[in-house]
Amino acid sequence: MNKYATLHIMDSAYCFPVTEHDIVIRLRTAHDDMDKVWLIYESKYVFGESQKRTEMNLTFSGEVFDYYSVRLHLEDTRLAYVFYLYDGKSYRFFSEDGFSEDYDYTKGFYNFFQYPYINRADLLDSVDWMKRAVFYQIFVDRFCIGDTGKDMQYVNMKWGDAPTPKSFAGGDLKGITKKLDYIRELGVNAIYLTPVFSSKSNHKYDIRDYMQIDEHFGTKEDFRELVDCAHQRGMRVVLDAVFNHCSEEISQFQDVCRRGKQSEYFDWFIISGEKPEKDPCNYETFAACDYMPKLNTSNPEVREFLLNIACYYIREFDIDGWRLDVSDEVSHDFWRAFRKAVKNVKADAVIIGENWHDASNYLRGDQYDSIMNYAFTKCCLDFFATETMNARQAAGKLNDILARNSDTVNHMMLNLLDSHDTHRFFSEVGEDEKKFKAALCLLYLFPGAPCIFYGTEIKITGGYDPDCRKCMDWERTEKEKDSEVFWLLKTLSHVRRSYDLANGRVCISSDKDGRVLLYENDAPEGKIRLLINHSPGAVVDNGVTLEAGESFLYVEGGERIC
Amino acid sequence: MNKYATLHIMDSAYCFPVTEHDIVIRLRTAHDDMDKVWLIYESKYVFGESQKRTEMNLTFSGEVFDYYSVRLHLEDTRLAYVFYLYDGKSYRFFSEDGFSEDYDYTKGFYNFFQYPYINRADLLDSVDWMKRAVFYQIFVDRFCIGDTGKDMQYVNMKWGDAPTPKSFAGGDLKGITKKLDYIRELGVNAIYLTPVFSSKSNHKYDIRDYMQIDEHFGTKEDFRELVDCAHQRGMRVVLDAVFNHCSEEISQFQDVCRRGKQSEYFDWFIISGEKPEKDPCNYETFAACDYMPKLNTSNPEVREFLLNIACYYIREFDIDGWRLDVSDEVSHDFWRAFRKAVKNVKADAVIIGENWHDASNYLRGDQYDSIMNYAFTKCCLDFFATETMNARQAAGKLNDILARNSDTVNHMMLNLLDSHDTHRFFSEVGEDEKKFKAALCLLYLFPGAPCIFYGTEIKITGGYDPDCRKCMDWERTEKEKDSEVFWLLKTLSHVRRSYDLANGRVCISSDKDGRVLLYENDAPEGKIRLLINHSPGAVVDNGVTLEAGESFLYVEGGERIC
Repeated sequence: MNKYATLHIMDSAYCFPVTEHDIVIRLRTAHDDMDKVWLIYESKYVFGESQKRTEMNLTFSGEVFDYYSVRLHLEDTRLAYVFYLYDGKSYRFFSEDGFSEDYDYTKGFYNFFQYPYINRADLLDSVDWMKRAVFYQIFVDRFCIGDTGKDMQYVNMKWGDAPTPKSFAGGDLKGITKKLDYIRELGVNAIYLTPVFSSKSNHKYDIRDYMQIDEHFGTKEDFRELVDCAHQRGMRVVLDAVFNHCSEEISQFQDVCRRGKQSEYFDWFIISGEKPEKDPCNYETFAACDYMPKLNTSNPEVREFLLNIACYYIREFDIDGWRLDVSDEVSHDFWRAFRKAVKNVKADAVIIGENWHDASNYLRGDQYDSIMNYAFTKCCLDFFATETMNARQAAGKLNDILARNSDTVNHMMLNLLDSHDTHRFFSEVGEDEKKFKAALCLLYLFPGAPCIFYGTEIKITGGYDPDCRKCMDWERTEKEKDSEVFWLLKTLSHVRRSYDLANGRVCISSDKDGRVLLYENDAPEGKIRLLINHSPGAVVDNGVTLEAGESFLYVEGGERIC
Repeated sequence: MNKYATLHIMDSAYCFPVTEHDIVIRLRTAHDDMDKVWLIYESKYVFGESQKRTEMNLTFSGEVFDYYSVRLHLEDTRLAYVFYLYDGKSYRFFSEDGFSEDYDYTKGFYNFFQYPYINRADLLDSVDWMKRAVFYQIFVDRFCIGDTGKDMQYVNMKWGDAPTPKSFAGGDLKGITKKLDYIRELGVNAIYLTPVFSSKSNHKYDIRDYMQIDEHFGTKEDFRELVDCAHQRGMRVVLDAVFNHCSEEISQFQDVCRRGKQSEYFDWFIISGEKPEKDPCNYETFAACDYMPKLNTSNPEVREFLLNIACYYIREFDIDGWRLDVSDEVSHDFWRAFRKAVKNVKADAVIIGENWHDASNYLRGDQYDSIMNYAFTKCCLDFFATETMNARQAAGKLNDILARNSDTVNHMMLNLLDSHDTHRFFSEVGEDEKKFKAALCLLYLFPGAPCIFYGTEIKITGGYDPDCRKCMDWERTEKEKDSEVFWLLKTLSHVRRSYDLANGRVCISSDKDGRVLLYENDAPEGKIRLLINHSPGAVVDNGVTLEAGESFLYVEGGERIC
């Protein structure tokens, strides 16, 4: 029995309430170490005298660790528990004090594990629409020019040319509205827009006025029309909240530049000195960008300023959520206030952090609902692109990723292969269409919501920023509408709509040699089965031959999808 | 290299800021596995191009796991890092993706560990007075009768007789005030009182009016006098906040009993049905006590009601903190609001949770400062009383306990051998004075603040409640003032006042055979060294013979203390 591997953390992704009377308990063990794992549990005020016992199931299986879990329905939610383990040779108890041959329940109050009580206020409510969502991310300046009557003098590149960091192509909100039917054809039911507020850059991550739609993108009326038209088509709209930093052009920073410590906004920023200086830069910024001063979100005035913005766009335009830029550098304290404010205005507005790393401390119910799942992205790159992972390793990693967070969070994750901050995935896989399609299948079926970057459907290529932010090729969309990738995305969206994937048990595994990755989901409507042949030769599964690099998606009662 | 044991969790006790520019990183490994452990780190926006490297120190050593740590001073606190490990045979990197032979820093943004930014609002400020505090816990009804003129009809036992669960002995606030000089003689500089608000029980954990001092204990004037007299003597006063539940006699619950769902207080409690029923009990309670209905702290009205109480006693009487009864069953959300409210009134008021188990999710800076350290209690019981642990095991456990929380939290822990909720420790060690004294030495020197239960100094015996709540024996205090235990407590308090223990590096270890427990602290004022012989025979250390069961406390520049 591997005592080093066995891990349980109370009040974490290892023990989380799902409702006011249901709770999930997980235990990590070494991979392939245990024959049986039981949970011994009872109300903590009864545990000394009597206990219940239930077997736990192997839920996730990584390369190094396995994860067992069980869901309990409890009348009395003051839960005490210990684990009872059998590795084929010996039996052991596992409590807060570690392993023991015997366990004295009468002294358990010192060292049982516990979930003390399920308080309504601590429950992470599921944003249920995320379970069937399909997101489409739009970099507004590069998507579509809709307002042909506007002053185009700011546009400094020809649509379709290679963009530079300073290029303006002319895309706007009207352009998106115009293309909503096109987007819907892909089965998309949610769009996520990079920032739309007043800013001098093309990306608009340096905002000078949060209360104005950027003049190049349109007006508040244009924005209202976009949201309304999207909603009429059953599509939700999520905006980008850039609250970690702003533009140096914002009036508050300008005031500080002029008046230094005399400015009432001096503490809105983090400045060492009398006033902001650039050489060397004496104030906190985003990255090393002195034109993007960091906002001091520890200052209650700044907090109120930003919360008002967050609520305004929900209240006035009925947007459906916020993606939080550089959210990991903003305080937990701020996101707690943000969640309360946002959910108070719209309970099912989704809150998605941009945390590239394990964000469990932000995902406990008090801050975000989910994050952009870059750990999933990295795994897909390692498996499909660089091939530094075989199928066994990839299956293991995907299981480890699922074990990081609660089931509730997993079903709200924003999964992605690429974004405006990465290379284009189609380029990463060397424009190999088989690999691309296999990765898209995995993306759409993995717990959480898939998010494709605009142009994925027409296999736009590109390296890192600015190359990943090329103009949408509308001529090609006409040609590609019958392409295999376009058809696959439509079909995968249809699968997500037709099958309650979040209610099925997901099993991600591989054959022993790591040649074939297998995803299974026993959704209530029927089984889904995805096989991806990662080996250089053909493999045979259940009488079906999969050629090298080929994937195979089977839907119960339906046909083979790819 | 043991890949199962190696553990790092971002934004936890494994990575915590100490100031706005200082951060501590810890890594768990298998015990005795590593030869060298390095931290490779840099600002996350630089990490791809260049990195710094520093060696980590073995800080805590448990039986199964070791914990390495390093403190960094950072100008740019957006910290990225990975670990580099050498076990005498091979070198490995350890990142968010686990072990690897090589590490590609240019792709690090996907899988380095990080502390994204030290935000002021998330910092857990130290309550510095806790570092030198010595607490004395008083169960008010059993300590001292000070108001000899009061109506004594409620008193139903003779002072000194064995108490029953329903006994009233007559102790009161005036009695405590009268004995402050006595308490101070022990070197005590903080008292923690079990509840003092209006309640029909002797323990007063079932409160009917939070805004009244219990009539048997005295008046608000008596309470003010107690706090003022304590403060004049340099002693702080911490009260017991019973906010998980109240008495059925509280007016709000009585209103609900009368008016059911018509009552405006119906949602102050958690009731399934039209009105509270006792047989069977249809409302949530503390434990199975139907006379103690649970308060619905998820209800904002209840939250405001309780926060007002918490602030009132600080503002009006200048109390120095709250110990939180059954705090683990109250929501995180409530304690977050509680912390903000309390710290806003008095920044150095201490907040001590009654969590018997690992409470790391309450100790991240947003809720409590510390907890009652019952894990320490259990370890002392196993080592000194039941002797189910030898010195090696005890040293390991004490190290594991320290690794649970940040250094900041560790120095605010309330360490205890017993309380009103346990057997008396002197009874637990079979009234063995050698063991008792050794345990007291460990209690006073362990990181955090010691808390002795009234009567510890005169070796009061007792089993579980009500036996641990005997009347204070004032006659014996006269006889015992020259006793070894009394003298030891005074001396240990003196050591805590004279030595900045919180600034010394603590090392708790044992000899290989687990016969002698060794505590060392290289405080700035000189070294402290405690040896406890746990073996049945004499042992020799540095030329000094320790008889069986004997302990030895040495203070640099001073004499042998015991």
